[in-house]
Formats: sequence, C-alpha cells, structure tokens
Amino acid sequence: MTRTDELCINTLRFLAVDAVEKAGSGHPGLPLGAAPITYVLWDRFLRHNPENPSWANRDRFVLSAGHGSALLYALLHTTGYDLPLEELKQFRQWGSRTPGHPEYGLTPGVEATTGPLGQGFAMGVGMAMAERYLSRYFNRHAFPIVDHHTYALVSDGDLMEGVSHEAASLAGHLGLGKLICLYDDNDISIEGSTDITFTEDVGARFEAYEWHVRHVADAHDLDAIAEAVREARAEFDRPSLIIIRSHIGYGSPKQDMASAHGEPLGPEAARATKEKLGWPAEPAFHIPDEARAHFGRAIERGRKREAEWREMLRAYREEYPELADGFEAMTEGRLPEGWEAAIPSFEQVDKPVATRSASGEILNGLAASLPNLIGGSADLAPSNKTHLAGYDDFGTGTGRNLRFGVREFATCAILNGMALHGGIIPYGATFLVFSDYMRPAIRLAGLMKAHSILIFSHDSIAVGEDGPTHQPVEQTMTLRMIPNLTVLRPADANETAACWKIAIRAEGPVALLLSRQKLPVLQPDRYPVESGVPRGGYVLKETETGKPDIVLIGTGSEVHLALDAAATLEARGIAARVVSLPSWEVFDRQTPEYKASVLPAEIPRLAIEAGVTLGWERYTGSRDAVVGLEGFGTSAPGGIVYAELGFNVRTVVDKATKIARG
Amino acid sequence: MTRTDELCINTLRFLAVDAVEKAGSGHPGLPLGAAPITYVLWDRFLRHNPENPSWANRDRFVLSAGHGSALLYALLHTTGYDLPLEELKQFRQWGSRTPGHPEYGLTPGVEATTGPLGQGFAMGVGMAMAERYLSRYFNRHAFPIVDHHTYALVSDGDLMEGVSHEAASLAGHLGLGKLICLYDDNDISIEGSTDITFTEDVGARFEAYEWHVRHVADAHDLDAIAEAVREARAEFDRPSLIIIRSHIGYGSPKQDMASAHGEPLGPEAARATKEKLGWPAEPAFHIPDEARAHFGRAIERGRKREAEWREMLRAYREEYPELADGFEAMTEGRLPEGWEAAIPSFEQVDKPVATRSASGEILNGLAASLPNLIGGSADLAPSNKTHLAGYDDFGTGTGRNLRFGVREFATCAILNGMALHGGIIPYGATFLVFSDYMRPAIRLAGLMKAHSILIFSHDSIAVGEDGPTHQPVEQTMTLRMIPNLTVLRPADANETAACWKIAIRAEGPVALLLSRQKLPVLQPDRYPVESGVPRGGYVLKETETGKPDIVLIGTGSEVHLALDAAATLEARGIAARVVSLPSWEVFDRQTPEYKASVLPAEIPRLAIEAGVTLGWERYTGSRDAVVGLEGFGTSAPGGIVYAELGFNVRTVVDKATKIARG
Repeated sequence: MTRTDELCINTLRFLAVDAVEKAGSGHPGLPLGAAPITYVLWDRFLRHNPENPSWANRDRFVLSAGHGSALLYALLHTTGYDLPLEELKQFRQWGSRTPGHPEYGLTPGVEATTGPLGQGFAMGVGMAMAERYLSRYFNRHAFPIVDHHTYALVSDGDLMEGVSHEAASLAGHLGLGKLICLYDDNDISIEGSTDITFTEDVGARFEAYEWHVRHVADAHDLDAIAEAVREARAEFDRPSLIIIRSHIGYGSPKQDMASAHGEPLGPEAARATKEKLGWPAEPAFHIPDEARAHFGRAIERGRKREAEWREMLRAYREEYPELADGFEAMTEGRLPEGWEAAIPSFEQVDKPVATRSASGEILNGLAASLPNLIGGSADLAPSNKTHLAGYDDFGTGTGRNLRFGVREFATCAILNGMALHGGIIPYGATFLVFSDYMRPAIRLAGLMKAHSILIFSHDSIAVGEDGPTHQPVEQTMTLRMIPNLTVLRPADANETAACWKIAIRAEGPVALLLSRQKLPVLQPDRYPVESGVPRGGYVLKETETGKPDIVLIGTGSEVHLALDAAATLEARGIAARVVSLPSWEVFDRQTPEYKASVLPAEIPRLAIEAGVTLGWERYTGSRDAVVGLEGFGTSAPGGIVYAELGFNVRTVVDKATKIARG
Repeated sequence: MTRTDELCINTLRFLAVDAVEKAGSGHPGLPLGAAPITYVLWDRFLRHNPENPSWANRDRFVLSAGHGSALLYALLHTTGYDLPLEELKQFRQWGSRTPGHPEYGLTPGVEATTGPLGQGFAMGVGMAMAERYLSRYFNRHAFPIVDHHTYALVSDGDLMEGVSHEAASLAGHLGLGKLICLYDDNDISIEGSTDITFTEDVGARFEAYEWHVRHVADAHDLDAIAEAVREARAEFDRPSLIIIRSHIGYGSPKQDMASAHGEPLGPEAARATKEKLGWPAEPAFHIPDEARAHFGRAIERGRKREAEWREMLRAYREEYPELADGFEAMTEGRLPEGWEAAIPSFEQVDKPVATRSASGEILNGLAASLPNLIGGSADLAPSNKTHLAGYDDFGTGTGRNLRFGVREFATCAILNGMALHGGIIPYGATFLVFSDYMRPAIRLAGLMKAHSILIFSHDSIAVGEDGPTHQPVEQTMTLRMIPNLTVLRPADANETAACWKIAIRAEGPVALLLSRQKLPVLQPDRYPVESGVPRGGYVLKETETGKPDIVLIGTGSEVHLALDAAATLEARGIAARVVSLPSWEVFDRQTPEYKASVLPAEIPRLAIEAGVTLGWERYTGSRDAVVGLEGFGTSAPGGIVYAELGFNVRTVVDKATKIARG
C-alpha cells in the first residue's frame, strides 16, 4: 500500500467516522473495515463519470450493506459527485441528501436504495441481467455500446438473508460473468460474532451455485484485492464472489466488536482511532490535499471515458441509426410512437375471458412494439400467462422470457435492479397470495419509484380448490397501503387493456391483479371503459333516471356481481349506479369535482370486493356497507367458495336494499 | 421391493390419482413419484400412533411440498387415522377434511399447513428445535421422554425458496441431528425441467451448511432409501438431507413432464397409468386387502409404542413428579398458576420508558415463571430487548436464547414449527418494518392459529435517523389485516405488561408493536390500564363533564399526543375524551354495548396513529378525521421526523377543533 493509498483510505474512513460523530448516530464499523475494499475498486476499476451519474454505460456499484452509507457518501464526495462536504456534515439530518441509508433518486451516484439486507445484492443481479440483455440487443461488431460491470459490496447480513440465496442461485444459473460481489467478511453481526449463528461455508455455498469464488485474506492487501477483481473480470461465464477478510471498526478501540457496528465511536474512541491510524484529531472532515488530488483524478478519467464512449455511439449511429435511436429512447425511458396500437381490444362479448388470459394476449401484443419489455414468472408462467410466444428464454441470444424459478422475493428485487439500471421495462409474476413473499422488495420499489411491473394472477378466493394457502384475502388491500405503488384490479379484458396502458406509462411500481376465473367482457360501446379506467374509478353503469338511490362500488370480478345486483335492484324499484374502481391510487389523484361526480356525497354506497373489508370504509364510511371477507377462504370449487362466502346477488341485493331504504 | 411393498405403494399412488380425478383438480405428479419415499419412511421408521395424533413424543412428518396433499391423505387413511375413505372421495370439496393443501387443525395427523413453498421445511427445523429444547429440559438418565425425529418431504420448489436457505443454514449451525429431510428430486417444476432455472448443486450447498447429505439414485430402491434414513438417524450432530432421484408422474403418460404436476391426468391417462403399473382400472379408490392389512399394522405398532412411552412416563413421574407435571402442563398448553405475578408493574411515573425496554423487563420476568418461553431475535436482540439474562444460548444445555441471525422469514416459520410441536411458547423479534420479510409465515401462523409471539420494536417513523427503509408506515395496519393475528400496540410500560398477558394467553399468533423511543408511564392509579387493555380499547381519560365534544383515539406512542392535545383542547373549551386502542382485534370481540360506551355513535372522533391513514376510517368514518401518514418517512432525528410529519399537538388540536365545531 502506498502512502497515497493509505491517505485516501483513511480519508474515507474518517469522513465516515466524523459524519457519524456529528450526527450522533450511524454505522462507523463498516467504513473503517471496508474502506480499503471500496477504495481499490473505485480507484482502480470502477468506470464511472462523477459529472454524469446517469451515463448509460457506467459500471454500477451497489452498497448492499446500506448501513455503511457514510462510506459511500465519502466516496461520492471525494471522487467529484455533486455532493458537497456540507452534505456529509448534515449526515442523517432533515432535508439533507445524506440519509441514514442510501436512497436512490435523492443522492447523485447512489444506484439503489439499500439497508433492508439482501436486496442490494439481488438488485445487483438484476442490473447485471439488464446489462446482458441490452448488450445482446444493441451491441454490434466493434461497437460494445453496452458493456459494463456491476459491483456490489455485501455483508454477512446480506448473505444470511434468504433473498441472497434466491438471487445467487439464479445468477449462477445464468452465468452472469459481469457481476462481481465483494464480500466484507468481518465475522461480526449485531448480536456478536457470526460464530453464534452463521457458520456455513459461504464460499462453498456459492461454488454450489456455480459462482467463481476467490478469497482475500486481508482487506489491507490492496494488490490481492485488485488481483481478485482482475480475475473476476476475466471470468466471463460465472459471477464472482470475492470473500475479503476484514475487521469491523478497524483501528478503533471497538475493532472486531459488535458495538462498532451501529453507533458512533464517541469522541474519545474517535480520537483514539485517528491517533492509531496516524490521522490528525482536528479538523473533522479533513481531506489532505494529496488525497483530494488523487481521488479527483476520477473526474478527468470519467470525462474521458464517457467521451470515448460517446464517440463510439456517434460512429454506431452512423452505421446503425435505428438501433442508436432505439438505444437512446430506451435508456431515456421514452416509449416508441404508437406503442399502444399493439394492445388488442376485446369485442367478442359472448366469450368470457379471465383477465389473466387477456393480460397474456396484451403482453404478447406489447412485446412486439416494446423490445425492452422483458420478464417472466416465478415458476408460474402457464398460470400467470406471462410467456412471450416466439421469444427465447433469457440468456439465449436476445431471449426475453425470464425463468425466475420459485423465488418470488428475488423476482421483485431483480425487477427493481433492472428498472434502476434503465433501458428495460421489466415485469414479473406470481399468484397474488404470494405477493407476500416479495413484499419487502415491492416496498423498496415504492420507495425508489422503480418502474417494476408485477403481475399477480389468481386474485381472490375464486381460486377455489387450492384452498386458503392459495387464496388471497388481505393482499389487495395491503398492497394499496404501500406508498407509491399503483394497484390495478381490472374487471374484464378491456379494463385489463386499459390498465396495461397505465402500467407501461407509470413512473413507479405497478401491481396488476388478475382473475384466474373467466369473466364476462364489458362491451366497449356500452360501457365507458376506455375513458373511465385512466381515471382510476368511473361510472360504469348509470341508473335510468340518473338519480341513484345507491352506488355499488366494485373492483375486478366483483364488478360483474355489482352489475347483476343492480339489475335485480332496479326490478325492485331501487336505482343503483355501478362504479368500477380498478385503481384507488389513480382515482385519488383526480379532481375533487370528478370524484364527487362519481361518488356523490349524499348517495349511500355499498362496496363489493372479495377481500378483507377493512379499508373499504374509506369509501363507504362504514364496515356494514361492504360485502367482503373477515377471514380466510376455504378449499372447494371456486364458484362454490365465492358464493358461499357471500359473493352472490342475493347477499348484495339484501345489503343494498337495507342501505338504500336506510 | 416385495410384492406387498409394491401393492402398498401403488395403493397410495392410486388413492391420490383417483382423488384428484374425482375432484377434477389437484396434483397427481408428486404422489406418483414420491409414494415409495413416504412409504418406506412411514412403514419402516415413523413412530406415530394413528389413534392418538397428539401423542407428545410422536415423530413429526411435514409434507413441505403441500401440493402432494392427496398422498398424505392416502397415508393417513391407510395407516388408520380418523380419515375415512369417504373424505378422500371428497378431496377439495366444500366442508371436507381433505383440502387442496394440508391444513393443520382440520385433518388429524396433519402436522403443519403447507403449500406456500419452503415454509414446511422451515417449520420442520422449528419442530426439531422444540424437540431439542424439551428433551434437554425434561430427559433424565434412562428417561428419554422427549426423543423423536422430525421428517420432512421437500421438493425442488421448497429448496428454491429463500426461506430454505435461512432455515437450513441455522439448522446446520445448530447441528439438529434429529432433523431428516427427504428431497423428492424430480427435476421438474411448473414451467418445465429444473434445467431452465435451478441448476445449483443442492447437495454441495447443504454440505456448505454443515448438513449430512446422502444420495439415493432411484426412488424405487426402497432399501437404499432405508439405508440412507438409517444413516441419517445415526448421525447425531448434523441434520440430514437425503436426495432421492424420482420421476414426477411416475408410470403415467406424463411422466417426467411438468404437465404431471398440477392437473388431473384425465380418465384416459389415469387408466393407462393403472394399466402400466398393474392396477385394476376399477373400482376407483381401490385398496387391496393385503395392502390394507399391511398398512393397518401401524395401528397396533403405534398403540404399543405409545403404551411403552406412557409406561416410561409413569415411572418418570414417580422419580421426578414435578418435572412430570411440568411436562404435562406444557404439552397440554396449560400455564403454571400465578405466572402473571412475574410481570412487573411500572409505577415510577417520572421516568419515561420505551415500550421495547419495558417488554424486555417483562420478558425476563416471565422467563422465570415460564420455563418453556424461549426465543430471540433476528440479529437485533440488543435493539429488540429480547435477551433473557442469565440464560445460555439455545444449543448449550437448556439455553433459551435463540440467535436467529439476519433471517426474519425463517425466524417466524421456525416459531410456527415450535408452536405446532407443542410444549413451547416461542417468541421472535425484528424491527416492525422488517415484519414484511416474515409476512408469509405470519399469514400461515394466522391460518394455523399457531401461538407464535412476534416482537416488533421500532414501530414508527420516530425511529428517526435510519430513515425510510427502517421506518414502518404501512406495517401496523397491514398486520391488522391478517386474519387470526392479534396485533397489540401498547402506549406505555404498563400497557405493555397488560399486552404481554394477552400475548401469553392467546390461542393464535400475536404481534407486539413496541416503541424505540422512550414514552411517559401511565400512572396505574390514574389510568385504568389494567382493566382496559384486556378489552382491546378503553376510555383512558374521560372529560370532566363526562360529555365529550370529541373522542381522540390513539395507539402506542400517539396516545400521549392525544392526552396532550386533550389538555390543550380543554383549555380551549373543547371536551375531548381519550381512547387508547392497543388492539383492534380484541376490541372487536367486545359486546356492542361496551364498544358503544367507549366510542358513542353520536360523538365525532379523531384518530391519531403514526402509520397510514387507510383503514382508520373504520373508526372515524372519514379520512379527514385521521392524523396519519400518506407516504414514506425520512431520515432525521426521530423527534424532528415525528413532529414535521404532523405528530404534534398543534396539528391534532387544529384538526380536532375543526371536527368538534364541525
């Protein structure tokens, strides 16, 4: 290690330590131990341009161990990103761009929001998959316009999480050679030594996943780390895990102790650490000129690299103008003109269609006009109807069909990684009830506003025979509670088409909830589906007089029950308006006037949804005005379960009559 | 394989095939392929008593691949459980005891509800852990009163799920020698061959977890399976994985095809399969006398085994009467007299206490009177306050402190397994926001009514600096939506004590939501905490006149905000009653009269909770009458985040004033 290396590494360490000290909270342990690892990577390998954090062909770096955020901020500041030292001094404070865990979209250079362990690793897998697809789609001889690595720094905690298993198994299967994970193996987690609970042989486990595994005995051996990274870069057919022995809280009185992990060292220990590592006690946030100059080279290097790449892109454009246009449009998130034309409309009203089947047709239509729409299912493609006919599996040429395996959590985390990478519109699927398995990643998608499209079929107790383990009950409503997630539950094939338009255009994550069972098709010339769905909720059927005694609100399959009940009610002299409410979030964004026109304040309402009642009081004001569920479903043919648990015309009509005659 | 063996195996196969055919839905593939595996296990090894499915010392058998339910029902019927053939003929029908996936509590002999993949495996780990604890606690020389194995049949899908990694890593670490998993390695999942996505070396992976791994090349080699099971039973220090190569849909025209997995063979293929395996086409549900007789031996064997064990227990009782009493009480789920006395009450009202800290004290008190209360945290014990002082780690002697590692999903699944095993009151912990990671297991606990106690600390945005990734927002409300789960969010140390009483007595899963930050203590002689909490919601502070203008409803930390706001409102001439609502589920079970006495219909309300507003309309009728959140939190000191996002007296008072004067 040269003197400059040491100076730079200690700069990173103490910027982090000082940030944590000033904040009075945070995680000094990882920065002290892992600074040499990230330093080598950023100094010798990472191809990025601090002046343009969105350069499409940059290497991606994910700090999966997000609690080490202060180290990342130190790297970003010193290498020239738009993150002034003042921000590091505002670490973890209201309004700063240096939050406790890195947040995508808030801080330039942060590639993913991390902190919830395991997910950064899995998002890295997604980024490497996006790179592979785009490189195969766009690159031509002598024009590797998409050609970068994805690096992740992962911790013991990341590799204990189940999602690391799922994502690693898939990454190994796919042979993602451009994915390189550096494992900060410090043998410490919050409760103490990993000896107390984590004694597996991680290297052997990753070899079992078909990874290339290297060991580095000492995080201070920069050349050994560099050599391992070089070998990893030379390994084209397997992802790499570099296991680097480090010391949490290095140099501090708390070195190798769990207490170094998640709280400030304290002024005395901070001073002692500085002394031990030959660092001036004052001033805080000290950056020696030599270190500043050395780190600063990243700017010129990055400028030059991006310029060279732009030159290549210019030449590429001359030879492949259409591809170049496509590349720019995709990486900038623009949709090709007329893309919606590929969406079928469903006019054959005498033939019921499950919304999952309609979705499958729509998806296949969209695939033709959106070559960057790629995805698949967590081993349920035949049920979720997510297969793109005529395309290969991902990994074979420009194959677009992803086979996620029975790995729901990794599925969504990988979608998030692909969405963050840019250039891709990713979709993934499972049964609605198993959205629970991926919930932590859905939440993170909401937080990052990642454009991940989730297809959840088998969306109610009407699933039938598979029984309560496979029948969602609380999932629809609980998904609505994740901020920034758009939940869409279409009532028929045409609403499904309209919902897909919302899904493709969305700027955050989307969940499409689709029926297993066949549903009648709402005749386009009779029902204002096309104009209504984009508003989230709309009057599907008005009463003859235009003066309803009651409004029946339904979503998905229950819209048809509402229509049937309205007909019966009419025969009884009760005028019932039917409102379809496929998306609460979209409806919520409409003007108060529009909302009041759909749901006039003075008219009583009854909501119908095959899910928990809790939450529907937002629209009905009362639990009694909901036809829903209070418990789990049961195993029996879907129609029987549905009717027995209250989803039948009689129940709706009785309740509606009571409410209307109030 | 003898002729009898073959007859018995085919009996199991065709009972399953016929059940699926009759139902018109289900999974014939696994029963056809795995019948020999389960047959060997049940015939030669499983120590159980079909006449008493709750015999405490029976071997546990978990069908982790729950979609193979028909095979399990065939085993239960033929070996003499109270599951008449008529029930198999009612497979997947309304009101039957043979649902699509096995359901604990519904069918005698079903040890766990399975179907959601990976969880059966993890529950098996929990059962083996319960056995280890109880055996170490109760067994004395020559009295192995707790001494049984836990077996699980696991599929490709189970081992793809992340939870299998978490649970396997922990099981290997703990060296659970009495856990034996039989892996039905049929190389097929729903989308096709596992080659398309699951090519890891499972055996090597489990060896990396410190498991004992055996391979059996052919599921029809019964002796090889038996030999492997014998070796596994002889391995005391490591759990065993026996990888058995089988053929999905064996003998059918769909053998080795994904289409054999999840749909009936169809009458023709069913007939062809019978013909191929030498089975009469008619009658359906055929059980040859020889097979019936052979299977039937399980009854006599089981009777004898339990009788021998009861004899041992009798002798044990003579020598260790207190232990014997304890054993019986624990396995029957009875609590020792006076157990509540160990719960401290908090009277020092001048010293604020975080409810997580109060919970830690209470838990330590309870540990003394409830020796079967065992648990721990997913690597957050110092934060969750779950450590039992003075006790060893689980695995050392009768140590009770579980170190789950950063494995939240496995934590809850393992708790479920321990709860199902019986004899144990298990608890586990993480931050509330990470309850998402374990959500599929919480749901399953609800479905099974498993008495798993979940401790979720850091229950709001007041977590502060760690930021939105660590700040729960939607979790409190979404937990309330899981049927059969009791959610408890106490307002102070004394409510925490009262909530723990509910948690210990509960007959299903419980989630305790606890504050990170310190909270004032509600003086016991001033507030009716002790009588109120058991009713779920209660009037904490009445207005002076007893005639409130408004009711302020709060939970957890927000109760104190409600009290402060009420004082300010009073000064402004608005009489505000304060209701504490620690548990919606418990409150919901009270009489309508009681509920109306707490929340009179005619008085307007305002709810205050540091979580999503959606859902609170159940009590307030309107979203405008909630002080809550509509988005994610932010990274800054907790007090600042809390106040900035609307949790301050001014906001509450303004809103309450508007409503009261409405």
